[in-house]
This record gives sequence, C-alpha cells and structure tokens, in this order.
Amino acid sequence: MTNTFEQAEPEESQDEVERCLTAAATAAAVWGQWSPRRRADALSAVADSLDAEGASLIAEAMRETGLAEGRLTGELKRTTVQLRMFADVLRDGSYLRVVLDRQDTDFVLGPRPDLRRGLMPIGPVLVYAASNFPFAFSVAGGDTASALAAGCPVVLKAHPGHPNTSRKTADVVRSALAASGAPEGTFAMIAGRQAGVRALQDPRVAAGAFTGSVSGGRALFDIAASRPDPIPFYGELGSINPAVVTAGAERERADQVAAGFVGSFTLGAGQFCTKPGILLLPRGTGLPPQIAKLTGEVPPARLLTSGIAERYRERTEELAAVPGVDVLARGAEHEVPSGVPAFTPTLLHAGSVENLREHPVLLEENFGPSAVVAEYGSDDELHAVLAAVQGSLTVTIHTAGEPDDAERHQITGLVALAAQRSGRIVFNDWPTGVAVTAAQQHGGPYPSTTAVAHTSVGTAAIDRFLRPVAYQNAPDFALPPALRESNPLEVPRTVGEAGDSRRWRTPQG
Amino acid sequence: MTNTFEQAEPEESQDEVERCLTAAATAAAVWGQWSPRRRADALSAVADSLDAEGASLIAEAMRETGLAEGRLTGELKRTTVQLRMFADVLRDGSYLRVVLDRQDTDFVLGPRPDLRRGLMPIGPVLVYAASNFPFAFSVAGGDTASALAAGCPVVLKAHPGHPNTSRKTADVVRSALAASGAPEGTFAMIAGRQAGVRALQDPRVAAGAFTGSVSGGRALFDIAASRPDPIPFYGELGSINPAVVTAGAERERADQVAAGFVGSFTLGAGQFCTKPGILLLPRGTGLPPQIAKLTGEVPPARLLTSGIAERYRERTEELAAVPGVDVLARGAEHEVPSGVPAFTPTLLHAGSVENLREHPVLLEENFGPSAVVAEYGSDDELHAVLAAVQGSLTVTIHTAGEPDDAERHQITGLVALAAQRSGRIVFNDWPTGVAVTAAQQHGGPYPSTTAVAHTSVGTAAIDRFLRPVAYQNAPDFALPPALRESNPLEVPRTVGEAGDSRRWRTPQG
Repeated sequence: MTNTFEQAEPEESQDEVERCLTAAATAAAVWGQWSPRRRADALSAVADSLDAEGASLIAEAMRETGLAEGRLTGELKRTTVQLRMFADVLRDGSYLRVVLDRQDTDFVLGPRPDLRRGLMPIGPVLVYAASNFPFAFSVAGGDTASALAAGCPVVLKAHPGHPNTSRKTADVVRSALAASGAPEGTFAMIAGRQAGVRALQDPRVAAGAFTGSVSGGRALFDIAASRPDPIPFYGELGSINPAVVTAGAERERADQVAAGFVGSFTLGAGQFCTKPGILLLPRGTGLPPQIAKLTGEVPPARLLTSGIAERYRERTEELAAVPGVDVLARGAEHEVPSGVPAFTPTLLHAGSVENLREHPVLLEENFGPSAVVAEYGSDDELHAVLAAVQGSLTVTIHTAGEPDDAERHQITGLVALAAQRSGRIVFNDWPTGVAVTAAQQHGGPYPSTTAVAHTSVGTAAIDRFLRPVAYQNAPDFALPPALRESNPLEVPRTVGEAGDSRRWRTPQG
Repeated sequence: MTNTFEQAEPEESQDEVERCLTAAATAAAVWGQWSPRRRADALSAVADSLDAEGASLIAEAMRETGLAEGRLTGELKRTTVQLRMFADVLRDGSYLRVVLDRQDTDFVLGPRPDLRRGLMPIGPVLVYAASNFPFAFSVAGGDTASALAAGCPVVLKAHPGHPNTSRKTADVVRSALAASGAPEGTFAMIAGRQAGVRALQDPRVAAGAFTGSVSGGRALFDIAASRPDPIPFYGELGSINPAVVTAGAERERADQVAAGFVGSFTLGAGQFCTKPGILLLPRGTGLPPQIAKLTGEVPPARLLTSGIAERYRERTEELAAVPGVDVLARGAEHEVPSGVPAFTPTLLHAGSVENLREHPVLLEENFGPSAVVAEYGSDDELHAVLAAVQGSLTVTIHTAGEPDDAERHQITGLVALAAQRSGRIVFNDWPTGVAVTAAQQHGGPYPSTTAVAHTSVGTAAIDRFLRPVAYQNAPDFALPPALRESNPLEVPRTVGEAGDSRRWRTPQG
C-alpha cells in the first residue's frame, strides 16, 4: 500500500522526540517485566476505551479520510478485536516458547548444563502508521498492539493523512495504559518525517515497523540496516497480488468472477495492500469486456489524501501509455468538497503476456482504483507471468468447483509457484479482507515486505518483537518467572529430560 | 569469532558459481518438497558417512589447523550429532508450526475462511564457513545442517584456512546426499572471496549465514541488505562475553574462578566466539596476580591461520598500549613447523573502570589468547561497564553458592542488564562450550550477531531458513501434505475451531 507524506506535515521538536525515546527506554524495563497477564489486562483496557470513544473517533476519521461510517466502524472493531486477541495470546503464554533442557551428566556431547530458553521483548519499537487504515494499521493498530503485547514500548510516528484521528486515538491509548498502571513512555506519538527518521537512527530504538509505499519503506529499511547497530525493520511495502482464473472457473462462473474482481480491486477505492492488481484470464473469453462494463458502473470514490491522488493520477497515466496497453475502462476524476479528488476506476488490458514482461511497471502496485487484465494462452505463459511478478502478499486462484485431472495438475503447478512468490494463496475468493487470526500470514517476499519470515496481521505478528535469551545453571530466584521451576505464570513449556539425548549417539557410540 | 581471508585463496570461476546457483535453484523445488522424514533420513545418512570417514577427515584437519586430535574428534562428533538432532526435529514435525483455523461463519469480524498456515523453506542458502571450527561451523556444520533440514539447498563458501578438510567433507556430504536420492545442487561448495560476494548478490540466493569477524560479516550483511531485494543475513560476528565475579564468589572460591577463567579464555588458543574477553572483579582482591600467574603457565598454542595470527599480534599490541593498561602477563610468540605462529597468552589489566569506558577498544573482541581484567568498586561501576559493552553472545556471572540477600539483589540487577546485552547468561560456569540442544541460544544484539532474534547453535537454528505461507479455502489436493485434513505427515498442529473466537466480542457485542 502507499503511504504519502503530506506537504503540511508538522514536525515534532527534537526535544520532544528525545523525551519520548528516553521515556520509552525507561518504560521498557518496567512494561517488559510485567507478567503477560498484567499486560493482557492493560491491552483489554485500551480496547474497552477505544470502544467507549468509538463514536467520536469514527466521526473524526470520517472527516479526515472520507471513508464511510460502516467501513470505519468495522475497522475500529477490528482494531479492538486485535488488542483482545493479543491479550489472549498473553494469557495463554505459549508465545514465550519456553524450552527447558534439564542438566544431563550423560549427554552425548559431554555433561549438559541446565538450560532454559524463553522469548523476551526486543525493546522500544518505532511504528510508522499507514494512511489507508486510520485505525487498524495506525495509532492503535496491529503493529502497536503486537509490540505492546510483546512487552515493548511503542513510539508511534503518526501518518499525516489523519492527524486529529491519530491524536485522539493516542490520547485514548495513553490514558488507558496510564489507568492500568503502565509507566509513562509505554506509548508515545510523534509527528513529522524528519522526526521519524531521527528516531529510527536512535540507539534506544530496537526495531521498526512500517506499512506504506515501496519508496518510503525502502528508504527507512536502508536507514535501519545502515545503523552502526542494524536493527530489524518490518516493512510492508507494495504488492501486486496477482489473481489467476482457470478455464474451469471461467466456464462455471464467469459472471461471479467478473463481479468479484471488480468489487475487490475497487474496494476502498483500491487502497488496500491486498488489492488484486492484475487478473490473468484464459485467452479468448468474454470476460475482459464484461469486467470493463462492470468497472464502468462503479461510482467515484474519494482517495485518502491529495498525495495519494496525485501519485495515482500519474501512475495510471503512465500505465495507460505503455505500448500495447488497451484502456478497457477509463476512470474519471471528480472534485469533491474535501478537496481530495475522487476517481471512477480504470481497467487496462496488458495487450500480451510478452508485453507484461517487457514492461514490468504493469506488474507493480498502483495504489488506487485501477487494475490490469491479461490473457494467457498456455500454462507456460501463465507461469512466465507469475515468475516475473515480484514478491507479493497474496496470489489468488479461481478454479472449477470440482476440477478435473488436467485442471488439478494445472492448479498444483500454480500453487508451487504462488508459494514461492507470496505469503498467502487464496482459492475461489478475493485477497482483500484479511482475516485477523492465528493462521493468517500477511507478508511475503520483497517488495511486499522487507522481512519474509514475518506477518503484520494475525497473532503471529507478536514474533517480530521478541528475542530469545537462554539461562544456564541459573539459580531459581535469578530466572524470569516463566522459566522458574515452579512455573508461577503457568505458561506452556517444552521440557527435555536428562537422557532424552541418548538417541543421538552414533550407531557405534 | 574471527574469520580471516587468506592471501592465497583460490577463486571459483564465474561459470562454476553460476552452475552451482542454477543447480541449487532447481534442487530447491525437489529437496524442499521432500517429506521432512525423507530429509531426516538423508541427514542421518550424511552423519553416518562423516562418521565412517572420520579418521581421514580428522587427520586432514589436524594437518591444516594444528588443532589436536581429541578436540577434532569431539568436534566431528558434535557435527554428526547436530545432523542427527535436526533429523529428529524433522521427524517430530512441530518445527513446521502448523496452525489451522476452521471456517467460521460466525466470526466476530465477519465470516472467516478456512486458513492453514505452515512454514516452508526460504530457498537456497549461502553459508560462509568459519575458520575456528573446521567441522562444526564449516562445510557440514550447524548452518548447513539447519538449512538442509529446513529444506533449503546450501551453497557453501569454503573457509581458506582448511581447504582440503573442506573439500573432503564436501565430497562426503555430496555423496551421501546423492545416495539418498537428493537432487544434484542440494549441496555445493565454492571457494574464493569474490565468488562469495557474487553469490550473495545473486537473486536465486534467499538467505545468508556467516560466522566470522565483525569487519567481514558487516561487509556481507551490507551487501545482503542493499540488494534490490534484501534478504536475511544471519551473521555471527564478534563478542566480548563479559564475566562478572561477585564478592561472594571471590570469598568462596577464588582459586577455582582464577583457574576456570584462564582455562576458558585460553581454550582453543582463545579462538572461540564465546571466549570471555573481560573479567570484572571486585576491587582489591588477590585475583589479578593469581590469574596472571596461571596465565603465565599456559603453554604456547598455534593459531589457526597466519591471518588470524597477524591480526591477533596487532590487536594485542594495540590493547597493551592503551594508556592506563597494565600488562599482567605478556604472551610470547613462538615459531612452529607449520609456519603459523604459536602464542602464550596475554593478560591485561584495564587500569580503571573509567579507562574501559574511555577506551572502548578494551571492550571489543580480540580473537586469540588474550583477556582483560578490570576491578569494580560498586554496583554502579559494574553496571556502567556492562552498559558500555556492545551486544554479546553471553554474559557470565559467578556468585556465592548460597548468596545472601544483598548479593541476590546485586545478581538480580546484573541479570536484567545481562539479558539486554546478550543472548545467554551463564552462572558459575564459563561461556566456552556451547551445548547443542533445544534450549540453547547462541546469538545476541549486534555486533555479536546481525539477527538478534535467532540462534546459530541448537535446534532453533532451523527457524532462520523457514518462512510462513497461509492457504485460504484451498482444496485438499492443493495443500502441502502437512496442512491436509488427514495430516498424512502426522505433524503436531494447533487448530482453531469455529466459535473459538466468540470470546473476542466486545462486552456490548
């Protein structure tokens, strides 16, 4: 998804940034030492407060983003559910991945000491809010929720697209945390592009999390990687999210596929990171004109910010001007009272598969209500396109309800390729609408993310902000509670008993 | 630990590097799709072959590295045990972290699809062998074992310090894999510094793993991070491994502490990544002269390579010349028949705690048989030193057997600081000798590693080479076996049933 720095973004003073970072570093030792259950209660309290202030937050977000009340109501609910899910993760405790290896004097490689390993918070996390989810990927969004759950204080760099919503949300988060007894500095918000860069260079910041554009995200990733002490930077940047339609799917439900695709790529005015940006159809069906017709019927929708609108306008013109590209539905721009323009969607036809490969810009994200369709004549052509696609959050495959052997073979080949190019493979559905749950994976190879082994949606997102520490022969009082013999936190633990290791002896030994 | 590029390192031809990378990319689709149990059998076969060739491998390694037979026999055993441990990890299957979320039409955030998430291999891994463990951190070492276990082909960049041992080991690995039916390209070895850099820049390489010096490792990390598509780079670089002695420990067993410290910092001629490089003693004990005396009694030991010897000589002179530093035991250099010099150990006294902070070079790794002792007058001084230490693999704490309340308080403070600065906290023992087991953590903040959330020793090392993929509403035949409904691989799975999520509803909803 695209994150655009607005012209008028105010800059936090250097003193204020310094104050936030100092407070975060101090808070880390307290918040990170709280029992998981105590942090769970604090996260639940934040969720309750957001619910209580929901009406006012939603009203402000409607004014600032132009998003509809229903959408924002659902998004705020997602935000509070995320906080409550992480609270449950903390109450369960298995996220700590505690492993105990008992002392074993008869260990195959010589006497083994008592070793106990568990995860601990990585330290203060700098979160960059996104433009397109003013709640769920912003101030109290998934990155904040997962970092706080992990025991890490959060310094949040606000997105300039919704400053008042950000401020109000930050006030709610801070108050609820304070009322729960959390130290000052557990959560702070800063504004400004330079402040965001300065904070990322600060040695007290232990990790970064970002959702936004490839250019912005890569610039920040580079800063994190080039620090004297590089830190993990979890960026979710840009994704084309290819969708493939098999001949079987086209035969059985062309109408449904056409309508579903248009619904998905224009949802939220095309401003979702999982927007299917390219649709790959069997050659010679009636789908392209049918999709074009439906595209032409979609009413104009306001974009989130003038910056996004400007970039979208330029990018769409660039794509339409690629040689061989046909404009199947040309979107129009409409002025709306907010001053941020609205657009009707644009649908392009890639021309040929060869054209897609010659003009890779057609395979890159265009944030807003546009999409490309292309037609493949063979599995080879289809595979060639998927192989040319950069890392993506998702790949979608529409198949027959009961695929025959030939189609099963085709699908198996597609899935193998899709698993290499993306983090989620969607069948007979559309990639927009990302379930917040334990099995979710919202991440993929670069540029969809900067950290392919991680997710920014779902409960596994907590892993990003934890790191292991092992204790060798530690007296019980010196251990973190989760590793103590009596297991006072009652966390699930894996125990390697003495003697377990005898199976690793060689046949001789 | 330190990895030194030798002068005479031969360079693999560009054609050969290309051939290896092509073969690795092709092998990835086969080796990565094998069932974990089939890969387990192949890893066990590699271990068996290494055992069978043990005598010849050890003889070659003795010639090339000057390490003693006993040490190398133990190291080869560690290497084969590592392979067998990863085989057991594969047979167990929980490393795949399979999570199934059942379809739930009544999900709190709207209907939830069937989602199934599991880990898959990241792709071909480039492993840089280390100088100091010609078996356990080299060709068939922990990085290779964990990457192969994960399902990733390995391209191994040989260390020039033991080229024949490397070649023989690589032959054994390749033959055993081939005999197990693994595709060509599952394992390949290349030589040469430029070849190693070129391979890291290749888009087919999905991750890097390295054990060596801060300068070499950082240069490679920077290359991995500045690729058009950055990839994870798991580097284990340099670590000072501070050791603290409390007044209680000094009172109870000064002799044991002195002897243990000298034994640990001179073990393997000080060429372990976990060598305790600085010892922090209560001020005014008789320990410094006692340690100096024992240091003076240690016989000369050959270093691994001339490059390491040269760097060690320079670095030791630099440390001895720091203002305020006292040379308590001055090591001497001895010529030995191999041409690589041997050294008796050097012990330095930092002068004052203030001196350590003014001259941070005293707190940086010096690879070889030297160490620094310093004396603290208060907990504040002790904390100030530990806070000035860069990220470290370990922190060691020697305490009284039954610490009184004051000492417990002191220990608790030290542990909190140690957990921030390192990945393993060792009590009443020494950090050299790293148990290979599930609870081990061999990793820490930069510069001890470039990836604080990971370990390069122990079974958790496999996590580095895996990434999650989620399947949404997938037909059973299109799922990887571990995610299929019938669970044909019998892997442990976490299942979220429909309805489980109702607890996340708000109090109102």
